[in-house]
Amino acid sequence: MASIFTRIIQGEIPCYKVAEDDRYFAFLDINPLTEGHTLVVPKKETDYLFDLDDDTLAGMVLFAKRIAKRIGEKIACKRVAVVVLGLEVPHAHIHLIPINNEKDVDFHREKLKLSPEEFKRISTMIAL
Amino acid sequence: MASIFTRIIQGEIPCYKVAEDDRYFAFLDINPLTEGHTLVVPKKETDYLFDLDDDTLAGMVLFAKRIAKRIGEKIACKRVAVVVLGLEVPHAHIHLIPINNEKDVDFHREKLKLSPEEFKRISTMIAL
Repeated sequence: MASIFTRIIQGEIPCYKVAEDDRYFAFLDINPLTEGHTLVVPKKETDYLFDLDDDTLAGMVLFAKRIAKRIGEKIACKRVAVVVLGLEVPHAHIHLIPINNEKDVDFHREKLKLSPEEFKRISTMIAL
Repeated sequence: MASIFTRIIQGEIPCYKVAEDDRYFAFLDINPLTEGHTLVVPKKETDYLFDLDDDTLAGMVLFAKRIAKRIGEKIACKRVAVVVLGLEVPHAHIHLIPINNEKDVDFHREKLKLSPEEFKRISTMIAL
């Protein structure tokens, strides 16, 4: 069965898209730790980041770099953190999270509740 | 002034080395979240991961991939997580953290206290 991310990429499930090319897709995390929290995924469904072949992995990180730069320009933060856990959805994904301190990447804290309008505003602001 | 990581790479400060090539260096985090927690750094001192040029960034991630595979083979864990925060030491570094759940990447929890013998055993076990 297609992963939830594949279904998002294919447009079966709506998302707030940030960027897309022939190999990768980026969209806002619907349960964000901070405003601008974005997920970057390869279009080819692969469970674990480091199971991607070298070329796809390197390309994915360079794609993420462009988005992280954009997030850093548009969202007030000290850094755009990078996190890959890989425990839940079996489709490799890089979290890009604008942070001001280490607590901002605590995956156990309560997630932000944003309205559709807020998600739309943020995705439009950082879209490439 | 050289960063603490440059001083480690140059051998001025001791470390438990895991791997090294002409461009990158990996060693155990001295304040590990879990056993096998490793830091990967570029030898060329650059503050933020995404300020690395594309070639150096891609090479660093492929170097980290090799080490993560090795950690996954040698340390009992569900995944080797990837975390880049970049708030403290101004020398880009990727944390590779063997995890069994999300709590294992909580940077605010108490770090493990390992003896020099334990660090030595772990670094020898995962060294490339």
